Amino acid sequence: MNCSHAYNCSPRVGTEFFSPTSGEQCISTLESAGHEVRVSDLYQMNWKAVVDADDFGPHASNPLQVARNSGRAFDAGALTPDVVAEQEKLLWADTIIFQFPLWWYAMPAILKGWVDRVFSFHFAYGVGEHSDTKYGERFGEGTLAGRKALLSVTTGGPESHYTPRGINGPIEDLLFPFQHGILYYPGIELLPPFVLYGTDRMTAEAYPEAAKAWVERLLSVESTEPIAFRPQNYGDYEIPSLQLKDGLESAGRTGFGLHVRG
Amino acid sequence: MNCSHAYNCSPRVGTEFFSPTSGEQCISTLESAGHEVRVSDLYQMNWKAVVDADDFGPHASNPLQVARNSGRAFDAGALTPDVVAEQEKLLWADTIIFQFPLWWYAMPAILKGWVDRVFSFHFAYGVGEHSDTKYGERFGEGTLAGRKALLSVTTGGPESHYTPRGINGPIEDLLFPFQHGILYYPGIELLPPFVLYGTDRMTAEAYPEAAKAWVERLLSVESTEPIAFRPQNYGDYEIPSLQLKDGLESAGRTGFGLHVRG
Repeated sequence: MNCSHAYNCSPRVGTEFFSPTSGEQCISTLESAGHEVRVSDLYQMNWKAVVDADDFGPHASNPLQVARNSGRAFDAGALTPDVVAEQEKLLWADTIIFQFPLWWYAMPAILKGWVDRVFSFHFAYGVGEHSDTKYGERFGEGTLAGRKALLSVTTGGPESHYTPRGINGPIEDLLFPFQHGILYYPGIELLPPFVLYGTDRMTAEAYPEAAKAWVERLLSVESTEPIAFRPQNYGDYEIPSLQLKDGLESAGRTGFGLHVRG
Repeated sequence: MNCSHAYNCSPRVGTEFFSPTSGEQCISTLESAGHEVRVSDLYQMNWKAVVDADDFGPHASNPLQVARNSGRAFDAGALTPDVVAEQEKLLWADTIIFQFPLWWYAMPAILKGWVDRVFSFHFAYGVGEHSDTKYGERFGEGTLAGRKALLSVTTGGPESHYTPRGINGPIEDLLFPFQHGILYYPGIELLPPFVLYGTDRMTAEAYPEAAKAWVERLLSVESTEPIAFRPQNYGDYEIPSLQLKDGLESAGRTGFGLHVRG
């Protein structure tokens, strides 16, 4: 057991299709390698997906103001026990693995509801002071700095549909709002995602190879370089407009790709 | 009353901040202009956000397979009454307005859960035959073809953070998975979104101007050109790889922007 390399296969949701990237495979692989694992199986937990006044008790305003209400409840230690437990797991882990199917080009509602509720104000955002050179602690800094995350995503469609010219758009752009906007925001570094395509047409013959590739990715997490997202407060961006300074990117870079160094 | 220009302010969710783009403003504006309006206020309806076996009754498999199970339940007329009512509203409407705050760079969980449940197999996807020149009916064709949608989105952050070089990424790219991947998929055309930025710092002085702009957008819906997303089956894409054919785009277009003509 090596607690300094603990993992958190959290949160895991029901997979749409036949998938070798199941939670059981993930957990047994990591535990066999001596890592400590804590699991949040959102469907099993009957996770409450919708933010509402019940989340904030006496700190709920009418109408609800999720940011202000969640910040007051967080400061008072009054968030609900399910949310507190998830925040504690995030603080405990050094690596967080998110296992989910891509439904309608995004995460399932239950996982978005995990984000909406667990990533409370003063925990995941609204952290740090503003100054002439700093715009809070976010995008590379924050409560969860020093941790890594790895997305394991299954899709129904084939890989060609998710390439730079594919009709769905590039997979790295579809995952950008989660990887950069949600996880990098409070400081988590992102390992390149593990994406298994075409899972609705997967044959029994293809299964062992896909499972092997996933196991290899899991076992190489500690030696894998994170995606080089640009930190907010270290010279890449104008403050407070938060626009990328001219000339920092390679020729031809546009869109979300601007926010990766290189 | 002009039923042929009916609108559907659906679904509306709790707004995070002080916003002049409220559902009430939307409904009264449209009704005053003679349009028929049906509303889905997801929070008011206590909308069930999480797809589970209860959605499919005897058509649920174990483990759940959302596509296959929802398709069988749809074919049998056995989807739950809340989902059937939303599908009927979508078929009834000619214009659908989605009013929501951007939470963590995406729609709130309750709205994603509306998509995950209402956009069932054989209703919103899995429609049409495949051939050498067709890949089903989707991206411009499908059950909801002939309808338009308009997103009304509020953000906490200022506009500069959502520009082409802004740290959050361009707003049109953040909205692409919803506008293109979810709504255009079953055939809905997208009007340019109405985005109100910086709503957490909005002053009482700025309110009337923002409300006026929103009313003007609502009243010009019928004369507004939709976003020119590329249809899938009319020569823009290779079939079945669904990659955009070389040379169709203007110089410098990359990423999601490739899928808009021009």
